[in-house]
Amino acid sequence: MIKIGIIGGTGYTGVELLRLLANHPQAQVQTVTSRTQAGKPVNELFPNLRGHSDLVFIDPAQENFADCDIVFFATPSGIAMQSTPDLLKAGIKVIDLAADFRLKEETVWNKWYGITHVCPDLLNEAVYGLPEINRAEIAKARLVANPGCYPTAVLLGFLPLLEAGIIDAEHLIADAKSGASGAGRKASISTLMGEMGESFKAYAVSGHRHYPEICQVLNAKTQVNLTFVPHLVPMIRGIEATLYAKLLHDVSLEEIQLLFAKRYQDEPFIDVLPPKSHPETRNVRGVNMCQLAVHRPQESDTIVVLSVIDNLVKGAAGQAIQNMNIMSNLPEDMGLTGVALLP
Amino acid sequence: MIKIGIIGGTGYTGVELLRLLANHPQAQVQTVTSRTQAGKPVNELFPNLRGHSDLVFIDPAQENFADCDIVFFATPSGIAMQSTPDLLKAGIKVIDLAADFRLKEETVWNKWYGITHVCPDLLNEAVYGLPEINRAEIAKARLVANPGCYPTAVLLGFLPLLEAGIIDAEHLIADAKSGASGAGRKASISTLMGEMGESFKAYAVSGHRHYPEICQVLNAKTQVNLTFVPHLVPMIRGIEATLYAKLLHDVSLEEIQLLFAKRYQDEPFIDVLPPKSHPETRNVRGVNMCQLAVHRPQESDTIVVLSVIDNLVKGAAGQAIQNMNIMSNLPEDMGLTGVALLP
Amino acid sequence: MIKIGIIGGTGYTGVELLRLLANHPQAQVQTVTSRTQAGKPVNELFPNLRGHSDLVFIDPAQENFADCDIVFFATPSGIAMQSTPDLLKAGIKVIDLAADFRLKEETVWNKWYGITHVCPDLLNEAVYGLPEINRAEIAKARLVANPGCYPTAVLLGFLPLLEAGIIDAEHLIADAKSGASGAGRKASISTLMGEMGESFKAYAVSGHRHYPEICQVLNAKTQVNLTFVPHLVPMIRGIEATLYAKLLHDVSLEEIQLLFAKRYQDEPFIDVLPPKSHPETRNVRGVNMCQLAVHRPQESDTIVVLSVIDNLVKGAAGQAIQNMNIMSNLPEDMGLTGVALLP
Amino acid sequence: MIKIGIIGGTGYTGVELLRLLANHPQAQVQTVTSRTQAGKPVNELFPNLRGHSDLVFIDPAQENFADCDIVFFATPSGIAMQSTPDLLKAGIKVIDLAADFRLKEETVWNKWYGITHVCPDLLNEAVYGLPEINRAEIAKARLVANPGCYPTAVLLGFLPLLEAGIIDAEHLIADAKSGASGAGRKASISTLMGEMGESFKAYAVSGHRHYPEICQVLNAKTQVNLTFVPHLVPMIRGIEATLYAKLLHDVSLEEIQLLFAKRYQDEPFIDVLPPKSHPETRNVRGVNMCQLAVHRPQESDTIVVLSVIDNLVKGAAGQAIQNMNIMSNLPEDMGLTGVALLP
Repeated sequence: MIKIGIIGGTGYTGVELLRLLANHPQAQVQTVTSRTQAGKPVNELFPNLRGHSDLVFIDPAQENFADCDIVFFATPSGIAMQSTPDLLKAGIKVIDLAADFRLKEETVWNKWYGITHVCPDLLNEAVYGLPEINRAEIAKARLVANPGCYPTAVLLGFLPLLEAGIIDAEHLIADAKSGASGAGRKASISTLMGEMGESFKAYAVSGHRHYPEICQVLNAKTQVNLTFVPHLVPMIRGIEATLYAKLLHDVSLEEIQLLFAKRYQDEPFIDVLPPKSHPETRNVRGVNMCQLAVHRPQESDTIVVLSVIDNLVKGAAGQAIQNMNIMSNLPEDMGLTGVALLP
Repeated sequence: MIKIGIIGGTGYTGVELLRLLANHPQAQVQTVTSRTQAGKPVNELFPNLRGHSDLVFIDPAQENFADCDIVFFATPSGIAMQSTPDLLKAGIKVIDLAADFRLKEETVWNKWYGITHVCPDLLNEAVYGLPEINRAEIAKARLVANPGCYPTAVLLGFLPLLEAGIIDAEHLIADAKSGASGAGRKASISTLMGEMGESFKAYAVSGHRHYPEICQVLNAKTQVNLTFVPHLVPMIRGIEATLYAKLLHDVSLEEIQLLFAKRYQDEPFIDVLPPKSHPETRNVRGVNMCQLAVHRPQESDTIVVLSVIDNLVKGAAGQAIQNMNIMSNLPEDMGLTGVALLP
Repeated sequence: MIKIGIIGGTGYTGVELLRLLANHPQAQVQTVTSRTQAGKPVNELFPNLRGHSDLVFIDPAQENFADCDIVFFATPSGIAMQSTPDLLKAGIKVIDLAADFRLKEETVWNKWYGITHVCPDLLNEAVYGLPEINRAEIAKARLVANPGCYPTAVLLGFLPLLEAGIIDAEHLIADAKSGASGAGRKASISTLMGEMGESFKAYAVSGHRHYPEICQVLNAKTQVNLTFVPHLVPMIRGIEATLYAKLLHDVSLEEIQLLFAKRYQDEPFIDVLPPKSHPETRNVRGVNMCQLAVHRPQESDTIVVLSVIDNLVKGAAGQAIQNMNIMSNLPEDMGLTGVALLP
Repeated sequence: MIKIGIIGGTGYTGVELLRLLANHPQAQVQTVTSRTQAGKPVNELFPNLRGHSDLVFIDPAQENFADCDIVFFATPSGIAMQSTPDLLKAGIKVIDLAADFRLKEETVWNKWYGITHVCPDLLNEAVYGLPEINRAEIAKARLVANPGCYPTAVLLGFLPLLEAGIIDAEHLIADAKSGASGAGRKASISTLMGEMGESFKAYAVSGHRHYPEICQVLNAKTQVNLTFVPHLVPMIRGIEATLYAKLLHDVSLEEIQLLFAKRYQDEPFIDVLPPKSHPETRNVRGVNMCQLAVHRPQESDTIVVLSVIDNLVKGAAGQAIQNMNIMSNLPEDMGLTGVALLP
């Protein structure tokens, strides 16, 4: 039984970790911290956990996680780097669901996150936790940087094409759309129901923090030129990414379909739909799955890839548990075999 | 392993049965029928079932359910009564998620459903499948009438008060609100996103088919006079019922809380919240649970009970599986221990 | 041309005042204040006003409203009472869209609002701005307390019945439902899309600030005993109130319909629908209208009244402009004749 | 006073025409037809029109429109072509809000709409009613083909770039998103709240009927190669199009902003926002306006244009009235100066 600590359990990734771990047969959450809710039962803040968790939020200052095997950070970016070195020193593995260890270059990190990284030496050690490219490294890692939600959806769609070298890396476009939960559970005006209900918009076109993260992974394959535009959808969960790439030479849709099928044939959490399918975000609501579909409209030279995930599951907590399973030598899908809630 | 047949698997209660049964350790869906989708893989219509079901919809005319132990009807009302007698004769148990066997009086049924019942003799045999009042009868039943969604939410809130005899049965009010999925998955204008999105209304105030069903159960306790007003909420899942009753004499909120706690202490799927709580429908999204809370505003003589369920789970498919477990002598909560999806 | 000042223009009632006044032929907004947005163009914060307003938010400390005839407070409760005495002294009329002057009893106000009123002497002078009962007084008023959104919907439904003396005042029930904009445009967790989307709940059952306001107006007719339960609907605009009252003696639905029709026959903003209608909140989206419908389900002794308004219009900014028109001797419907946005 | 007939008044473009024309000072709707609702008062089907319209739906077979100056078709595609020749012969001008006259090539029309055009000779005469490119022709037209909603949003965003010849016409991408009302008010499963609520998806990637329409207009400027992917957003109104184009040579964002500003400086219904703005669909809810914003992320060679409209207004009924005003020599913005409903 793996003993788990969760730091920052009052946000959406926190409650999602608790939901998924409640039915994990080999993991036991020992402790959940919160500065603001210390002393309150977890299931009072999140009544869906009544009957599933008797934990009480603990002040992080009062907790040393000594009895934990793995600690998850479900905190805003900039928190995990404060205590990760001590946890690692104490022999505790760390999975950070925030961005503290996602970028390799300290200067790039500092620029995009607007603060100075306090343990830049760990940036190199940290393994980027996308199992579909880094499974072996994750298995051996002490510190895993769980990918961002947009990067997960975008990378899984572009990777087969880039790895096969059949698209023009100089002109990639990712038009991505996310539900409100991606903005987190924090007091703000911009994600009020009254502000974002019944409306749709692009945001952060000039530069989103997930942009350098996506580029870093793609550039490791081929140097790319990517345009990434995120949008806000008036719904709670789900990311859809529509990806556009120009074929370098004529490749049929059937060949591309085969390419995807082969690339992901052993992946438990990638589901390549038949060509010309239209995956909906609800197909994966609540589950650790990425559904992909490829198109080649009007037989032109532009390939369109559709990619959907639940931003809180394959885009956050579910992928973190997938990484935990890999790091703990458990079956990779343990605790992650639920069926999506449709409708 | 119980062998299951589902008749009418293309609606919301059908797909919800398939979702919940996919993870049930002692039930196996053998066959799913559909007149309109015969020949199509179930997981093509409902892509959340990819990887969880390889069934193909079968024309009901081609299927005799001979290898099934239990058949669920997830059809519109008026269908189950056509073939239930034959199924029972063949030794197959039946759980009807529609309304064909919910009312005891043939004339009342004919009046509210606008057609003539074809097997009225079974109305009396059928057990009303609300385990919280009929557990023993369900265990022995061949034919279970699974309760309506509104009746489930309303009955569970009123029953402790009525059974204790502390409220004026002559003046009960149930103000109930439902998400769109309660109207089913069928082509219609009134439940289009464009029609019911961003709007709220009462409907069927003059008389809803669930009205006689609620009255029938309550009247078995005490003759009641109930006003029932259903409303449509711009969301997919969930029912909230706000119930109003006048105290016959002074009873403190604490005593009422105790009454509810005691009445439901052994019930696995009733969760009585602390007094003055405000249950939200999302607390039970996707799970077989009814959350209840009692209030006595301004210490007046009016008691307010708040009741929330997921209309597709405790209000339909989940309760049907709960009944199946009882009928099959399995642990009542088998396959029904998931955690609600919040947010 | 009436010259208008708006104090606190960054909330939903503020932007709604600006929207409605933009097309008012006899009113001109001179100034809009905001502490937090001073210096920013109004149409930058609210891009729907591009081309309709060139105003810039002004710091309230820098503004004396000397060139205004009427000042609207679109602030949180507790602000208007600070400067209303000075404005009145300067000969400027005041319409407060918040609650500072809605209650007559100082002790009641202090209890429900949790602070001490600073100008309790004005509580008596202030006219409660519900034109359907106070038109003459509003016309002569210096200070109008614009009604709350719930009180508007509830009062307009109960008043004809109470005035006619045909219902039991000892057992009134108002089950009211509101969209998210009723909670205002302020940073908070509870009204995030992620929190209140796709969910429904009752709230403040123990006591909502609109409760004493409703009771005060009803008690002026007959001493009442009211149970009021507000609920939150996952939509932006709209209030629906379902009202329940017990008939003292047999009165037919037709007579009740006639009673409503007669009571409101000269009211420009009350629309009594045919009996047994089901008004939807979208019918009045964006307009200053209350739609009412009466029912008597199962010919029982319980009358059901359905009442819908747009909480930001007839429940706030529209009613305020209606009051302004009355106070300024303009046609009562000037600037308020738009058509609701459906769908 | 222009006398108006509306054929097919029971859909969303029909009710939107009625809403907008209710406040038009120089237009009077004389007649509204419907096959299915003949005999029913318009304001019974659409209660937002109570007090604004006393019309009754008339069977189209009973109506010859002899007293009309202009007839709007708010019908599904394939209807207008049946009676347009007769109307024109009778000296009545026609504005078709459907697609019957949008394409110039008969064979292309027949292919995309799956039926044979019955008056292909009129395809050439019909003027494509996008005033921003065809104002002079519209003024003289007898027959106007009102543009599709997607084409309006996409064309207005691409035209300045294409006309200036600064982008690579061989690689245009339009990623467009629409609310549910774009699918019309007709019984269907796919646009139920239960199906499309809380979910997001691309659809018709292989080919949408608006694709040849967009290409036809763009090709008139330069031969283009366009990839067009529409998506469905869980909201009622609004289209957002995110457009991607590759610069042929270095042009600064400021120059592009200037280009747009100049191109649209005299346009009453195009609002070019400051560069790097993020227009939201709610900014234009209910009004005849297109808001545009240009971006050049990471100073790369890819220009991003954001375009938002209300699909039922600038994308349908509002643009039709704009065309009517032009055809009738009225001020182009008459009846179209409302303020968008935000929130």
